[in-house]
Amino acid sequence: MNVAQGAVDLLVHNVGTLITMRGAPGPRSGAGMAEIGAVAGGAVAIADGLILAAGREEDVRDQIAGRAILQELDAQGRLLTPGLIDPHTHLVHGGSREHELALKLRGVSYLEILAQGGGILSTVEMTRAATEDELYAKAKKSLDTMLLHGATTVEAKSGYGLTLEDELKQLRVAKRLQETHAVDVVSTFMGAHAVPKEYKGCADAYVELVTGVMLPEVKRLGLAEFCDVFCEHGVFTVDQSRAILRAARALGFGLKIHADEIESLCGAELAAELGCISAEHLLAATDEGLNAMAQAGVVAVCLPATSFNLCASRHARARAMIEMGVPVALATDDNPGSSPTESLQLVMTLACLHLRMTPEEVITALTINAAHAIGRADRVGSLEVGKQADLVLYDAQNLAYLPYHFGINHVDTVVKKGRIVVTDGKVVSS
Amino acid sequence: MNVAQGAVDLLVHNVGTLITMRGAPGPRSGAGMAEIGAVAGGAVAIADGLILAAGREEDVRDQIAGRAILQELDAQGRLLTPGLIDPHTHLVHGGSREHELALKLRGVSYLEILAQGGGILSTVEMTRAATEDELYAKAKKSLDTMLLHGATTVEAKSGYGLTLEDELKQLRVAKRLQETHAVDVVSTFMGAHAVPKEYKGCADAYVELVTGVMLPEVKRLGLAEFCDVFCEHGVFTVDQSRAILRAARALGFGLKIHADEIESLCGAELAAELGCISAEHLLAATDEGLNAMAQAGVVAVCLPATSFNLCASRHARARAMIEMGVPVALATDDNPGSSPTESLQLVMTLACLHLRMTPEEVITALTINAAHAIGRADRVGSLEVGKQADLVLYDAQNLAYLPYHFGINHVDTVVKKGRIVVTDGKVVSS
Ligand SMILES: [Zn+2]
Ligand SMILES: [Zn+2]
Repeated sequence: MNVAQGAVDLLVHNVGTLITMRGAPGPRSGAGMAEIGAVAGGAVAIADGLILAAGREEDVRDQIAGRAILQELDAQGRLLTPGLIDPHTHLVHGGSREHELALKLRGVSYLEILAQGGGILSTVEMTRAATEDELYAKAKKSLDTMLLHGATTVEAKSGYGLTLEDELKQLRVAKRLQETHAVDVVSTFMGAHAVPKEYKGCADAYVELVTGVMLPEVKRLGLAEFCDVFCEHGVFTVDQSRAILRAARALGFGLKIHADEIESLCGAELAAELGCISAEHLLAATDEGLNAMAQAGVVAVCLPATSFNLCASRHARARAMIEMGVPVALATDDNPGSSPTESLQLVMTLACLHLRMTPEEVITALTINAAHAIGRADRVGSLEVGKQADLVLYDAQNLAYLPYHFGINHVDTVVKKGRIVVTDGKVVSS
Repeated sequence: MNVAQGAVDLLVHNVGTLITMRGAPGPRSGAGMAEIGAVAGGAVAIADGLILAAGREEDVRDQIAGRAILQELDAQGRLLTPGLIDPHTHLVHGGSREHELALKLRGVSYLEILAQGGGILSTVEMTRAATEDELYAKAKKSLDTMLLHGATTVEAKSGYGLTLEDELKQLRVAKRLQETHAVDVVSTFMGAHAVPKEYKGCADAYVELVTGVMLPEVKRLGLAEFCDVFCEHGVFTVDQSRAILRAARALGFGLKIHADEIESLCGAELAAELGCISAEHLLAATDEGLNAMAQAGVVAVCLPATSFNLCASRHARARAMIEMGVPVALATDDNPGSSPTESLQLVMTLACLHLRMTPEEVITALTINAAHAIGRADRVGSLEVGKQADLVLYDAQNLAYLPYHFGINHVDTVVKKGRIVVTDGKVVSS
């Protein structure tokens, strides 16, 4: 059978507002972040899990004329976007830390809790104590929740093991999720998430373990595509971060960095210097650092749910980034300490209210720019011919309604690789 | 058949953490807000829609020994609380205002949007233009969402009609919801929500319409239990508010007041002077006003979702209120302008993060104190013998987990008057 005459597996029609995100192939910034390729009265035709046609319904029907249509989905005039992409999560971990809420309400800071052996280090204890199956079950539940809220591709970092074996355990869980779950899981090794207590005061020795043992073994086993480092006072210095990321680069990893979250250590500058694919947090990034990122094409991954939940007195300067030409992506930062949430829809609201991003910039940040932040823009992030058929249909009429009507889940249907995996607000196949 | 030997209609057993809220009959403040009557290993027995027994599972089983148990619900060791109560919403209205998000992001203030004929007045236009059936369908959908997020009793204000006929239309919708929906709807007349454009510059004449025509007619038709007024610069003055509330009191309405939200007009003092059952917002309330409220036993209804969504630079001083002896309740303020959300769970998180309330204080504020704010503490707000069997079972192990793990819906099952109305996170009967 001629491919051009093959059947349409699924036709989504009667889309009130279709956000295609079609446009420039690179990550978008400045005015480009407002160009979302919106189509009134749209449709999407899907075959073999890929997009065959997307645009005005009459154009799409012209393009598929003569083909059999195996399944139709009536969007009932509602809003459809590309599947959302969460480019920064700490999905795989043991335990939860609700008991720290009381400490936080009494004014104990994040770094103080960490210094007391709480924070990340208590999650390290719980992650080490958990079996691989326990970690899988917990992460799968969280991934189901992400899917239910519209995420179809999710990055997942290790970094709660901090021994070779426990880091590999986390990464194997991410791999198993990628193999078994509808959501695509992109794996990042983050052995340099904290200095483990066994190495307290000997961070350099731990850096050597990361560069000399962990990174080569993760590479050999093919368990991660990116390497990330937490560059911050009390965690890893700029020099240590540079050493780790250089070693990772030499092994062929893509690079990411948690930079300038609490204080500026010139992490943004380091991201540009090393050619990181993305830099994360950036609340304290300098103008020089942001300019360097713009020059180097580093995507800024802003995490407004984290600054919200930490009651931070400031937020990432997304408006400045956009004006300076830095492409901005958004993510949940889902983790059991600073951001226990799976909802990219709440992130939309927070990005509008706290980062002063427009709804158009927000959807760009959660689709095509997020895809660039994890090296997947060739496959996902927009509804263009040949890309994966990852779509979200909302119980909403327009884009601004999503961040406006906050605190609830607007997702009605999710299509992943052409398959309906969420319908009527429930996961039916993951 | 002897009542003492009647059947148990529903036994909820194996509750890991049962929050009963049993205790003092009056609204709670100070240290009393932390006393939530928590029981580990609990159960609740229900007959004829009322609570027959609630407490330690073995005690409950002793108390119902010999009775038939018609249905059992295994709580699987999870958290159970009284049904949540939302004591302040603007549930019934036409249209939505997502287009104002762009104005807000450009820095246009709430009062400026109102002065331009937007804000409340544009919702008034849409509400007047809507039929009663359209208003009912929209409000019912919103009430379903509230129920899905754990609310079993909801107050609903009029105030988007601002003519006699349009106010009555809104109130009839609330009445019809009360008669047809699982959620209990408590009706408040708020003709003094804004000065309608027909009365621009003649607010006193509108006040006369409210007091002379609307209030008596609402009373005659039995369409509302409370009367509320928006006392604020640019809306109704203290003298106008006093005149309306006195007229309402003379007719037998309970009194509420939107007070000191943006500037202090001594609305808190007025609430105390008039013996209001509750005062709302209170971001700018003075110490004198709060002390007067404490003396008079006025419940403070704090609305952190509103200050969050308005990006307010300050929040209600809940800690000061609690220390001064003011009973604090919480609510969504669900409305299409300043707080488009149905989720009391997001309110929990915001109350912790922004009002610095503890999880114990938050659940008190959303159950027994919220019940007092709407005159329903004799029937709902705690799990005590003889009260309505309104319960929420969460997919969570403990109370702090609800505000901690934010942005998603933790409700698994809702029981309303002994009947399961939400199960597995879906409304099955409303
Ligand atoms: Zn992170
Ligand atoms: Zn209100």
